[in-house]
Amino acid sequence: MGVPDPTRILSIQSHVVSGYVGNRAATFPLQMLGYDVDVINTVQFSNHTGYGYTNGCKTTADELTAIFEGLRTNGLADYSRVLTGYIPGADALGVVGNEMRRLMESKGVVYLLDPVMGDIGKGLYVSSDVIPVYKDLLKIATIITPNQFEAELLSDVKITTMSTLCDALTALHTTYGVKHVALSSIPLPVSLVSTLGVPPPPTSYTRLLPESHPPWYDAVGVAEGNEEVLVCFSSTCTNGELETYAFALPTIRGYFSGVGDLFSALVLGHYLRPDNVSSDLPLPPLAFAVSRALLTVQQILLRTHMFSLNVAGSGTATPKPLREGTPPADSIIPSDTELDNAPPLNPSDPKRRARRMRVREMRVVQERALIADGGEGWPCVRVDWETAKLRSAHTSISET
Amino acid sequence: MGVPDPTRILSIQSHVVSGYVGNRAATFPLQMLGYDVDVINTVQFSNHTGYGYTNGCKTTADELTAIFEGLRTNGLADYSRVLTGYIPGADALGVVGNEMRRLMESKGVVYLLDPVMGDIGKGLYVSSDVIPVYKDLLKIATIITPNQFEAELLSDVKITTMSTLCDALTALHTTYGVKHVALSSIPLPVSLVSTLGVPPPPTSYTRLLPESHPPWYDAVGVAEGNEEVLVCFSSTCTNGELETYAFALPTIRGYFSGVGDLFSALVLGHYLRPDNVSSDLPLPPLAFAVSRALLTVQQILLRTHMFSLNVAGSGTATPKPLREGTPPADSIIPSDTELDNAPPLNPSDPKRRARRMRVREMRVVQERALIADGGEGWPCVRVDWETAKLRSAHTSISET
Repeated sequence: MGVPDPTRILSIQSHVVSGYVGNRAATFPLQMLGYDVDVINTVQFSNHTGYGYTNGCKTTADELTAIFEGLRTNGLADYSRVLTGYIPGADALGVVGNEMRRLMESKGVVYLLDPVMGDIGKGLYVSSDVIPVYKDLLKIATIITPNQFEAELLSDVKITTMSTLCDALTALHTTYGVKHVALSSIPLPVSLVSTLGVPPPPTSYTRLLPESHPPWYDAVGVAEGNEEVLVCFSSTCTNGELETYAFALPTIRGYFSGVGDLFSALVLGHYLRPDNVSSDLPLPPLAFAVSRALLTVQQILLRTHMFSLNVAGSGTATPKPLREGTPPADSIIPSDTELDNAPPLNPSDPKRRARRMRVREMRVVQERALIADGGEGWPCVRVDWETAKLRSAHTSISET
Repeated sequence: MGVPDPTRILSIQSHVVSGYVGNRAATFPLQMLGYDVDVINTVQFSNHTGYGYTNGCKTTADELTAIFEGLRTNGLADYSRVLTGYIPGADALGVVGNEMRRLMESKGVVYLLDPVMGDIGKGLYVSSDVIPVYKDLLKIATIITPNQFEAELLSDVKITTMSTLCDALTALHTTYGVKHVALSSIPLPVSLVSTLGVPPPPTSYTRLLPESHPPWYDAVGVAEGNEEVLVCFSSTCTNGELETYAFALPTIRGYFSGVGDLFSALVLGHYLRPDNVSSDLPLPPLAFAVSRALLTVQQILLRTHMFSLNVAGSGTATPKPLREGTPPADSIIPSDTELDNAPPLNPSDPKRRARRMRVREMRVVQERALIADGGEGWPCVRVDWETAKLRSAHTSISET
């Protein structure tokens, strides 16, 4: 096998006919960045499961085996980067795992593994027999992008303080030998985020915010006081030493699908391989990739949110205000659950939830110029773990 | 059902993991044009069949039924444009056909049907029981994009002269009530093309040609004398009157896959719906769409060809010169078949054909700026059928 073409990526994830999760959230953005993306679809569903109803089919382990065999026979399984996301079932994941081990025999292949298994509040949404298969597969991954739920599951550490967060990251690095971990988001109290010195959103993001603050502004504002802010951590382990960066993200209320899939794809797309890192890179390679990925993801999310609010005149997309208390009457916005449970305004049209999901599909195609642009990156701060642990000793960071 | 979103396209075609045919040739270019493309994959193969070896699976009629049901249940089957291409098997095509009939009940939906069934020299490459299903489906299509083989099969007219070409187009329009036919390419003698007054390639295309003529230049040059030129025809029928435009295309020797799929997608993408046509449009809507589509397709094809020639130092991609006779020794370039049958230069690497196919995969991702640009369009001439028939009465235009 020759030197892999540096622009060739293989992405193995779900396919939905309509909307943007899995490969549908990853392929187009990576193509916009100039990558020649090969696409293996692990399912073909009509739409993502957030709609409440989904129909379609899964790609079986045998079918995946046949596809890989076809690629190898033609000398096409020659990638410089590989991305794996949602793969339903241990059998299919086993087939993918074997192929990944084969691919990683080529020197310098970058493998980003997104261990899609579940989420805080939703629990496990894959069969539990995939957990050991993922744990085994972690050993060959270059970068992993777990969310909090997945990080806890894989590290066997419950994240409740900065100290246990550090333990979880350390366990991921040392138990599995993973060099790079991007922990997509953990809710932290604002007070702690201030203590860590995590900087506010970049100007290219705040420019998008409307000048006057309509009732829904709270939903995209930065939290205050004892409220929570989502924080993303990028962590690289070199010779047992953790180098961790923290990125504070605005909270957008309401459910958006595929955000993690877009994030993982862009982290892989923006990650500079060791042979390509220049000395004037403002951050280490993983933190740099996360910074670029977050700017695009957060901008697309905000623009999608603003689009969904524009459509909200019809009552289909309404976020709950971030602040509790007694807001003015005209800013009382019911939650998604309240809306779904309310009697339909138009009894002949019960598809409120599906419509809400539709207008919240990420606007990756409409905002394609923004993906290509890249921008200045999302600001971050390097975490001083000793100080962070000390200062947050009595602050519980998670109550889940 | 409300007014369909004008940017929403449904595309139903094949999916290959690696390379650019079917949906892989259609989706990204349409997204580059700003369309929100929903994608139903009728197969998932490792690569296109030109490689000589392919592995993967087909989407069954039952699976397609499930997917459409999911889309409808969520109110997502609400498209302003639909594109269908390769659909293997009469059962699957029947399911798609029923869904198309349902979709066409919405006013103003544009349906481009590419009746992918076979090609001159290759014959039928789908099961023959799809032919009647296609014939039935033609009755609801807005635009069809057959190649010569398919046009003959559907019209039951053998195209051998300008007169029979006119008969075939007329039959397609009148038998099935299709308003727009884009006949992707027919080889015509240069003398006849001159008679018709079909203009040469546009300057944005000729700019791409190298200033000095290397031995392979002939392969992309315009033919002379009694050689053949590929001609594309766009034909619109209004009240029984044919309005036909002819576009002359340079002949690039060597086999490229997915060209027809890219062409069909771009014709649909550039087609202006009747409610959106401005009076200063230089051509009628179909001819305009074909003109824009051809410029992009031909430029991508030429750039792909030039890329494959750059790699040809390794002997993997070599076109046959257009002109016969006794060329200089250093410009004798063996044909694809000769190369495939030659003993391999490196006996341990028998994958010459697969490698050649790989370097000839259309460069849609690399040339994405060109797709978004659009350019001036490919030049054409309106066909004066009476004169054309008269002048070509004794010229056979096809010997297949």
